[in-house]
Amino acid sequence: MNHLADLVDALPPGRVLTDPDVTGSYARDQTFLPPGKPLCAVTAESREDVIATLRWAAEHRVPVVPRGAGTGLAGGATAVDGCVTLSLTRMTAIRELSPADEIAVVEPGVITADLDRAARAHGLMYAPDPSSYEISTIGGNLATNAGGLRCVKYGVTRDSVLGLEVVLADGRVLATGRRTMKGVTGYDLTGLFVGSEGTLGVITEATLRLRRAPETPPATFAAEFPSLRSAGDAVAAIIAAGCRPSLLELMDRNTLKAIDDWKNIGLEPGVRAMLIGQSDDGRPGAAERMAELCEENGAGFVATSSSPEETEELIGIRRLAYSAKERLGACLVEDVCVPRSALPRMISEIEAAAERHGVLICTVAHAGDGNLHPVFVFDRDLPEPPPHVWAAADEVFRAALALGGTLTGEHGVGVLKRRWLELERAPVAGEMERGIKGVFDPLGIMNPGKAI
Amino acid sequence: MNHLADLVDALPPGRVLTDPDVTGSYARDQTFLPPGKPLCAVTAESREDVIATLRWAAEHRVPVVPRGAGTGLAGGATAVDGCVTLSLTRMTAIRELSPADEIAVVEPGVITADLDRAARAHGLMYAPDPSSYEISTIGGNLATNAGGLRCVKYGVTRDSVLGLEVVLADGRVLATGRRTMKGVTGYDLTGLFVGSEGTLGVITEATLRLRRAPETPPATFAAEFPSLRSAGDAVAAIIAAGCRPSLLELMDRNTLKAIDDWKNIGLEPGVRAMLIGQSDDGRPGAAERMAELCEENGAGFVATSSSPEETEELIGIRRLAYSAKERLGACLVEDVCVPRSALPRMISEIEAAAERHGVLICTVAHAGDGNLHPVFVFDRDLPEPPPHVWAAADEVFRAALALGGTLTGEHGVGVLKRRWLELERAPVAGEMERGIKGVFDPLGIMNPGKAI
Repeated sequence: MNHLADLVDALPPGRVLTDPDVTGSYARDQTFLPPGKPLCAVTAESREDVIATLRWAAEHRVPVVPRGAGTGLAGGATAVDGCVTLSLTRMTAIRELSPADEIAVVEPGVITADLDRAARAHGLMYAPDPSSYEISTIGGNLATNAGGLRCVKYGVTRDSVLGLEVVLADGRVLATGRRTMKGVTGYDLTGLFVGSEGTLGVITEATLRLRRAPETPPATFAAEFPSLRSAGDAVAAIIAAGCRPSLLELMDRNTLKAIDDWKNIGLEPGVRAMLIGQSDDGRPGAAERMAELCEENGAGFVATSSSPEETEELIGIRRLAYSAKERLGACLVEDVCVPRSALPRMISEIEAAAERHGVLICTVAHAGDGNLHPVFVFDRDLPEPPPHVWAAADEVFRAALALGGTLTGEHGVGVLKRRWLELERAPVAGEMERGIKGVFDPLGIMNPGKAI
Repeated sequence: MNHLADLVDALPPGRVLTDPDVTGSYARDQTFLPPGKPLCAVTAESREDVIATLRWAAEHRVPVVPRGAGTGLAGGATAVDGCVTLSLTRMTAIRELSPADEIAVVEPGVITADLDRAARAHGLMYAPDPSSYEISTIGGNLATNAGGLRCVKYGVTRDSVLGLEVVLADGRVLATGRRTMKGVTGYDLTGLFVGSEGTLGVITEATLRLRRAPETPPATFAAEFPSLRSAGDAVAAIIAAGCRPSLLELMDRNTLKAIDDWKNIGLEPGVRAMLIGQSDDGRPGAAERMAELCEENGAGFVATSSSPEETEELIGIRRLAYSAKERLGACLVEDVCVPRSALPRMISEIEAAAERHGVLICTVAHAGDGNLHPVFVFDRDLPEPPPHVWAAADEVFRAALALGGTLTGEHGVGVLKRRWLELERAPVAGEMERGIKGVFDPLGIMNPGKAI
């Protein structure tokens, strides 16, 4: 362990943690994957800490697993044996927030919702809002190219990133992108790092695009449907009518039932799906128009509201979804995405897989994007999903690909999806990706075994 | 020339052109750069033609310069000695247009405006609209990550690309991206190809995102300002007020004078700048609100209109800008981009450079993006810009970088900007980009000497 002493020497006091109880708490994310045993954890507080750690890791060929808040759902931050887990959560500075240029320059440990709140003080917003945004970090969002509820209107994390500062595997610093809204000098290295799950380097600063916050509170609707098909038709009608929802979420009956069992929302027997949507562009009647389209496509009960309190009540149902499922058992949260028109078929495929394998699957979808989160519920006492759950998940993944979709819309490949990766990605793409990996990380020390 | 016979044999009859008069017409774009002498031109009509050409080129180590319509302004399609110029303009099929999924799958030779028109037949639009969009191709737009007038609201070409089919330098076919709105499987190879100026492979198909077309004709305003500062303030005020313009163009006095000399638009002596803007989201009073903000920031004359005819009249002034300048002499069209708040300072820097070097510079800006096109006018009889024009351009580039900007917002680096590239890009970025180039094109035959 001589070389560990070198790392301690290279960093300010207290940065290197070696107590196994402590390093264990830095070893996993929100997945069930059994983590490896880290050599140590480093809690970086500056770019210089990251540089020193990577220089040392390169010298000693020690794998580095960068991590934010550990809210990932694909195992991207899972420790490997003998690694340094490099935590960026203490780098929380918002270095700049320019209302005139509508940009922010932030460190990777900034909590996503904190940046949004800081922006709102200037009439701006930070658009990406993964469900974990009150606890997730910008660095983690960048690593996975996180989506969220608002991305039906505002796009994913990539769409809000202008430039990055990255410490490469050998400790050198790379600046990518720019502060301007447009720019085409050189290859798009910024885009390459976003979603690369820490396999190419460690992001130590991001220049992010902010947007004008809506001037009025969003108008909201909720609608109950007698079938998934009719809910899917309503989604298509809402998009086709140019309603531009800022949120459009679908919940299946299993999800609604889990919520009802917990909070008694008065779920009627014939309700098979609920659609909740918002419009934030201030056009009068926007929520009512979407509600009408739901009725025209077979919705029974519909409700609309423009008051913040009632809106909170309607959206609150959606917010309860994950907690309600966690009451039922342990949850494997999945993340397929299909072309929007294939949404009802995808849900049917999920239901069929659930039935075939006797698995309870509760599905929530960012319906406007065709991005579904089927949640596979299993026995809480099991350390990881049992084989019949994986068998059902396998069928769901294959069905998504057969419908022209993808294995992961916003969570990433991590470790969890690597088994299925080659079903989606042609060999030549894998070869090119490994080639790129070799350019940035010739020693293969950056988050090995993840993403590609 | 034995190997040329092999190429002729490998392709259907008529694809290989060797008459120097003909190949010369495929040797340059809209820049002044003297092209090299191509070995031949290939007019590809299919993916198979591209594969055969690249296999042959790899075997014989012949450089390949892919090209669309040749409307580029940075020399990206300029022939090099002994190359094959590979024209994609005959691959014009729109293979699929799905209103339900809001995507189109197209060949690279489709004219940009043709795709937009095809989309509009379904109530959709293809948002990117470089000024050349009636003659430029999608493939060329992808190669340069083209911008345009609407990108202040809808983003650049990259923001409308979901997936690509690319023929690599060795003739293998690579599929990138997906048909879904979101997806994070593997590295972002799609983004890497967009803007790579043909240096990594040849795009033979693109899956593009369409958007709902506005339901009502855009509302338009035009405003005349007594100073550039006041026009810049108006731009800032319009953005800060959340007006979400779908177009926001600034013209300086030199540009307006060139138009007035030609078409007599009644330009008053005190007018130093004109701002023309549109809103396409159908909110009543949107153009009037922007016009008011112009008045509050010192505009003299302002006009607004929601009628298509009057709108055409106002926008028509902007459309005349390039033709008006071309009446004055030969034009070097530049493309710096700065943070939006630096727009007035950048224009001052351009004026100072013009004065110092005795060059006539007429500037048009996509003001909402901070993207300026200073047009350097010089003697039509000269084969290329004279030294004092380059000296002025050099100062303009350096000023843009000093203001936190970039050398090129939407035209690309090509050959033209390579001299200045290292002023913007740190050595480590260049090293990584050359590494990536080596992964995709180990023989270095793809558009050598361009972009990076």
